[in-house]
Amino acid sequence: MKVLIINGPNLNFLGKREPKIYGDETLELINNKIKKFGMNHGMEVEFFQSNHEGYIIDKIQESYENVDYLIINPGALTHYGIGIRDAILSTNLKTIEVHLSNVYSREEFRHKSVISDICIGKITGFGSEGYKMALQYLSNLKK
Amino acid sequence: MKVLIINGPNLNFLGKREPKIYGDETLELINNKIKKFGMNHGMEVEFFQSNHEGYIIDKIQESYENVDYLIINPGALTHYGIGIRDAILSTNLKTIEVHLSNVYSREEFRHKSVISDICIGKITGFGSEGYKMALQYLSNLKK
Amino acid sequence: MKVLIINGPNLNFLGKREPKIYGDETLELINNKIKKFGMNHGMEVEFFQSNHEGYIIDKIQESYENVDYLIINPGALTHYGIGIRDAILSTNLKTIEVHLSNVYSREEFRHKSVISDICIGKITGFGSEGYKMALQYLSNLKK
Amino acid sequence: MKVLIINGPNLNFLGKREPKIYGDETLELINNKIKKFGMNHGMEVEFFQSNHEGYIIDKIQESYENVDYLIINPGALTHYGIGIRDAILSTNLKTIEVHLSNVYSREEFRHKSVISDICIGKITGFGSEGYKMALQYLSNLKK
Amino acid sequence: MKVLIINGPNLNFLGKREPKIYGDETLELINNKIKKFGMNHGMEVEFFQSNHEGYIIDKIQESYENVDYLIINPGALTHYGIGIRDAILSTNLKTIEVHLSNVYSREEFRHKSVISDICIGKITGFGSEGYKMALQYLSNLKK
Amino acid sequence: MKVLIINGPNLNFLGKREPKIYGDETLELINNKIKKFGMNHGMEVEFFQSNHEGYIIDKIQESYENVDYLIINPGALTHYGIGIRDAILSTNLKTIEVHLSNVYSREEFRHKSVISDICIGKITGFGSEGYKMALQYLSNLKK
Amino acid sequence: MKVLIINGPNLNFLGKREPKIYGDETLELINNKIKKFGMNHGMEVEFFQSNHEGYIIDKIQESYENVDYLIINPGALTHYGIGIRDAILSTNLKTIEVHLSNVYSREEFRHKSVISDICIGKITGFGSEGYKMALQYLSNLKK
Amino acid sequence: MKVLIINGPNLNFLGKREPKIYGDETLELINNKIKKFGMNHGMEVEFFQSNHEGYIIDKIQESYENVDYLIINPGALTHYGIGIRDAILSTNLKTIEVHLSNVYSREEFRHKSVISDICIGKITGFGSEGYKMALQYLSNLKK
Amino acid sequence: MKVLIINGPNLNFLGKREPKIYGDETLELINNKIKKFGMNHGMEVEFFQSNHEGYIIDKIQESYENVDYLIINPGALTHYGIGIRDAILSTNLKTIEVHLSNVYSREEFRHKSVISDICIGKITGFGSEGYKMALQYLSNLKK
Amino acid sequence: MKVLIINGPNLNFLGKREPKIYGDETLELINNKIKKFGMNHGMEVEFFQSNHEGYIIDKIQESYENVDYLIINPGALTHYGIGIRDAILSTNLKTIEVHLSNVYSREEFRHKSVISDICIGKITGFGSEGYKMALQYLSNLKK
Amino acid sequence: MKVLIINGPNLNFLGKREPKIYGDETLELINNKIKKFGMNHGMEVEFFQSNHEGYIIDKIQESYENVDYLIINPGALTHYGIGIRDAILSTNLKTIEVHLSNVYSREEFRHKSVISDICIGKITGFGSEGYKMALQYLSNLKK
Amino acid sequence: MKVLIINGPNLNFLGKREPKIYGDETLELINNKIKKFGMNHGMEVEFFQSNHEGYIIDKIQESYENVDYLIINPGALTHYGIGIRDAILSTNLKTIEVHLSNVYSREEFRHKSVISDICIGKITGFGSEGYKMALQYLSNLKK
Repeated sequence: MKVLIINGPNLNFLGKREPKIYGDETLELINNKIKKFGMNHGMEVEFFQSNHEGYIIDKIQESYENVDYLIINPGALTHYGIGIRDAILSTNLKTIEVHLSNVYSREEFRHKSVISDICIGKITGFGSEGYKMALQYLSNLKK
Repeated sequence: MKVLIINGPNLNFLGKREPKIYGDETLELINNKIKKFGMNHGMEVEFFQSNHEGYIIDKIQESYENVDYLIINPGALTHYGIGIRDAILSTNLKTIEVHLSNVYSREEFRHKSVISDICIGKITGFGSEGYKMALQYLSNLKK
Repeated sequence: MKVLIINGPNLNFLGKREPKIYGDETLELINNKIKKFGMNHGMEVEFFQSNHEGYIIDKIQESYENVDYLIINPGALTHYGIGIRDAILSTNLKTIEVHLSNVYSREEFRHKSVISDICIGKITGFGSEGYKMALQYLSNLKK
Repeated sequence: MKVLIINGPNLNFLGKREPKIYGDETLELINNKIKKFGMNHGMEVEFFQSNHEGYIIDKIQESYENVDYLIINPGALTHYGIGIRDAILSTNLKTIEVHLSNVYSREEFRHKSVISDICIGKITGFGSEGYKMALQYLSNLKK
Repeated sequence: MKVLIINGPNLNFLGKREPKIYGDETLELINNKIKKFGMNHGMEVEFFQSNHEGYIIDKIQESYENVDYLIINPGALTHYGIGIRDAILSTNLKTIEVHLSNVYSREEFRHKSVISDICIGKITGFGSEGYKMALQYLSNLKK
Repeated sequence: MKVLIINGPNLNFLGKREPKIYGDETLELINNKIKKFGMNHGMEVEFFQSNHEGYIIDKIQESYENVDYLIINPGALTHYGIGIRDAILSTNLKTIEVHLSNVYSREEFRHKSVISDICIGKITGFGSEGYKMALQYLSNLKK
Repeated sequence: MKVLIINGPNLNFLGKREPKIYGDETLELINNKIKKFGMNHGMEVEFFQSNHEGYIIDKIQESYENVDYLIINPGALTHYGIGIRDAILSTNLKTIEVHLSNVYSREEFRHKSVISDICIGKITGFGSEGYKMALQYLSNLKK
Repeated sequence: MKVLIINGPNLNFLGKREPKIYGDETLELINNKIKKFGMNHGMEVEFFQSNHEGYIIDKIQESYENVDYLIINPGALTHYGIGIRDAILSTNLKTIEVHLSNVYSREEFRHKSVISDICIGKITGFGSEGYKMALQYLSNLKK
Repeated sequence: MKVLIINGPNLNFLGKREPKIYGDETLELINNKIKKFGMNHGMEVEFFQSNHEGYIIDKIQESYENVDYLIINPGALTHYGIGIRDAILSTNLKTIEVHLSNVYSREEFRHKSVISDICIGKITGFGSEGYKMALQYLSNLKK
Repeated sequence: MKVLIINGPNLNFLGKREPKIYGDETLELINNKIKKFGMNHGMEVEFFQSNHEGYIIDKIQESYENVDYLIINPGALTHYGIGIRDAILSTNLKTIEVHLSNVYSREEFRHKSVISDICIGKITGFGSEGYKMALQYLSNLKK
Repeated sequence: MKVLIINGPNLNFLGKREPKIYGDETLELINNKIKKFGMNHGMEVEFFQSNHEGYIIDKIQESYENVDYLIINPGALTHYGIGIRDAILSTNLKTIEVHLSNVYSREEFRHKSVISDICIGKITGFGSEGYKMALQYLSNLKK
Repeated sequence: MKVLIINGPNLNFLGKREPKIYGDETLELINNKIKKFGMNHGMEVEFFQSNHEGYIIDKIQESYENVDYLIINPGALTHYGIGIRDAILSTNLKTIEVHLSNVYSREEFRHKSVISDICIGKITGFGSEGYKMALQYLSNLKK
């Protein structure tokens, strides 16, 4: 089973600043831990991060025949990136939406996601553990 | 670590009807699997289900000194049970919100939760696996 | 054919006070007339009233295999009792919604019903005759 | 007792097409059954159908001294025909609103009726039986 | 292939006044050009204009078995003529919506159409060319 | 100076019923008084009433070259008769809007007029005197 | 009969600037013409203008036993001066609302008046003639 | 004079936790002080608390002939407990609404009360003093 | 302890008119009773009434170092007088909001207060007793 | 005459998947047909597709002096790509908006376009024929 | 060049209290610094502050022929003082809007200004420097 | 002190077209003038323009340790570029928002900015002078 994990704008900045709020793990560190977790569960995990909606769409289109599932944290694009929604719709990739923070205890505009209704499900508020929880769920599907 | 899992109105009806939509597992079956999963991860899990908002509030108040975490699927009360929100607030129990179905692909009124902003996080769309994902997260906290 | 008639909060108070507005018939009197009407049309009618949303949900769950149809006047719960909606949905009971008064000439919030779209139909404004009109309709279905 | 039944735009098309959705009874057939039902209950029933809001208003004005009650299914005009509302208001005709389908499980805009609050009551979702239920109610008033 | 073109209220006034805004072509002139265009593409075109929603509904009902397609510019009725929507729905006529002006650069209330979602498509802003573009599209369908 | 006074749906019913609310003057009586008032001020006044939006649009189109001003009380069509708005716009007739009652102390939906912004002005709440006040204003324009 | 005419903020500036939009009549000139008009119709007219909501309320309170009617153009206070509304309500003065321009063809916020529903009626769009039309109406009441 | 004081969901938890926010008085302590206060003013006070909307409605129905006034703090049910509203309406009990905290400086949804408009008045923000202020008011009514 | 009581627009008119609605007590009478009540509870009470928002702001600014508490009934300014809100905010005066009538059973716009969230609390619906209840509360604070 | 046709995000995916919904023509195929159609009508057509809003804006800026008209299908960017709106506004390119599907029978958010009001017109629902209809219209302008 | 600077309600309180939030400069101090700054740039600056909307309108009317520009910080009146808007409109004074704090990071209702759209521009969030930035801009216009 | 000035989509087009609306200065010219202004005030100014939200986010991330302040005119991205908001939030760069035109006198959607509340302040309507006003403010901070 091959899984693509996409992180949207500004998630490359994790751990670079304000460790109190976002933790002191960099995205690289998180990705390494997730990769290992995936391997332990017999899953190959690929990572992609971009601050550009366009490149995220490009990536989804390129990957859709090579990966089995998509895990996506679209960052700010969660709230307006309908282009990403359409990429998921047109490739028909089974997708899980993940957010590090609990978006419901932040600004009102963060409560709205343009992709939630077309995903399998949504995991929000569990920090980088969220990615693993998504992988764990996919891993169980195999059995 | 002791965890209380509360299920709200109509969740006692799981598996009794329409297996195509809700699966054919009864709540009892699900609870057994979760109990075992908890034990394997060194957690004691208690279960409570009620169709009455009042009894759910009573239960939260009675339990708050005996359990470490609350996992709650308030069913229909998700959308208007502010009394449950206040019970969580006044007991200050750390809580995870779980929904079996992806509430964002159902009726508009199901997108609104009156407890999301006061929980640790939310897991929605993964069926009964969602309870386990929540337990898994709590289990990792210990380490 | 067996029909369950459920009356929600405060409908047990009919005829107890303010006869000018609500009529001077008590709920017992109304139920007796309806029972007789049912018998004359070859239908067994069971009655249930509660001020508790939880007991109404319990009742629907207990009855769904024993009755053919549900006639419900959810009283105030019409406007927020999504738990009742879910009970009807999960038992799949064919249901008719009845209101004594014309809800559309009362407060704005009474125009909204959380169950109308999942019922066969709705009868509002005809006093206790509404229950009989619902029974009459069901009685004709048999033929 | 004399009752006028008015059907609004497109109801003359009943049974002409798509019998699965609307049934295969033509409006003529329905009217005949209702007429007979009325006669059996000692009521004279007159029928009027038009696709023109103007003619419906004209009819209400002409009839108000000759009929005791109005039963109206304004079709699409339910949602914007304030002229019909005013005709009912200015003639002060006691009126029952009837819809064949359950308007609450159709498009959002069909939930709004501009006449509900000035009618005795509303019957929706029972097909052509709805007209009879209205007549039955009026018939009982006499007693 | 036979096509009915219906123009709603005030479109009979084209070219009669304010040529700068609406052009100096009368509806008769436009219709003649369209008729010729239709003939050149092997289509018979019939025209109907009325300021009355009722007559437009009557016309759709009378024609639905005699024509293959409907092209409609409902004029002001675009925004509230739900009766026309229901006529199209109940006759199931395949329909194209046309507007002469770009409704999106005019008053806010003109942005709303009660028929767009039940039509094949919509052409707006191209003056009387819009009717021809609709015919051209239908003409290509044959091939 | 020639002035056309148009009255919309149900205004032909003035004085026929409920004299306490609407006064006991019939529309004929009112028109006679207005005609005389017009003559005294050197104005020829023509009257038109219809319950049909279509005929009102027809009338505006037929008259626009024969009359100098339009005084209109569109009745219920005030709130949705965009076809009348377009008739006024396309004929470019200078128009005064008149209402008998104070629409602002009635139902919320009566506060909205679809023609107010394209009229010279609006007179509301002065009963049949409103028509005379409009004529008086036009009469002064001449001087 | 004694009538008080109150003009609100900035109406003292009429004719001082931008004669093309507001006309070149100063408020003094307008008042003089109105005074004369009043005298010709047997009415004593008093004038009051202020840019202060407080002084307008003071004036209404002082005058309510000395005048028979109030004609008011509250200027900008039309849209938020609920204190003036309450002054009219508590003195119970019969009031006519007048606006010089057609408020419905100006900014959206000018369509809302906080006093319309408690006045006899409203005259808008007829320039300074509006005051005379109001006086004319009051003058006719005497007869 | 006999007064019933009803406290809704979670108010039994007062003083049990987070004394900084809610004070360190338990509900028992508060009730004792109020009872004494009542006795000093010649009033008998009865107390009832429940986390169940149903039991609160039951209580209101049982008490309405035995008590002269109701003081109610519906807790979270303030915002959606229309069943309580209807119980007050149908028993016609004169009622005062009390809240401990200033609901207007908390979450937006707490600003809405479904019973305010049918109560004598509302006291909010004065902690447990609010109940005494209500009693004081009732006590003065006797004189 | 020194308390300033401010009454906003039109409250000087109490008892002058319509005794049935507002009671027959003038503001002077009410103030005298309150002064006496204050003296009995060891509080000096100062009164200020104005129809001008500006003078109310001036007064709050002048008084903030001389008084311990502010009790305010802003009348109509409750709904839009943000300047008064800012005066309370910038002087940081502890304030209680009082209304004579139950604002929640009056016009919709009276439900909104621009100062509620920055006050200690709010008392509404108890007539002039409300001022005394506020004083009583402040009096108890001393102890 | 030279025309630039821009396709936004995910339109490069046409024909790659789900032929039932989107047809089995790839964008390349469609473009070839359109190119030929253009040549037959004496128009040179250039194509550009990107998943990046930025590159689409770049392209519009680079092209505005080299092309006579723009035909654009902004895909998902239709609903939020105000940057594209501004590019069209600042280059002043005459533009036609095209959509393949009928956006009005899809999700609510697809009904909103941020460019419709600044285009010549809009063609929606006719599949790839829409581009040709736009070209045909432009071709007729030359004559 | 002569510039009038108007400060609205409560700005006379600057520096009197809560220096941490508003700074410890009084309005007098700020004005002195601005006057000097103006003189250095060859501009005469006049200052006016009032807590009364009425006096601010009076001042604008009196000054409009004596000053070249208006800089205004309307304080709370920013959000509802349409009378000030009308004063600026009717005097046609070129105006710059200034706010000390960043209104967009404060209460929602402070985001709305009733004068922004009729001003040259708006400067918000720079404390008393904002007045100087406005003067600097005006000073550059001369050159 | 080093300052980064970022201009968003289409601002590279300044001066290229429609000099009447946007002025005839190109962005290069403006930047040169600003650079000089910065140097005169002892500030080093760097410029960046892009039509791509992604590149603007990239730039903010790369620069946050090298620059002291950010001045940003996000162009169209002002209204939906939440990714830019998050970049400013996560780098914690002190930022000033600048717009050339007065956004409040343009389309409604331009009134909304997704970054205003997290900036120091906002300058809008002063053309290219706005950048200098922002620099001047920053320059004064040093002193």
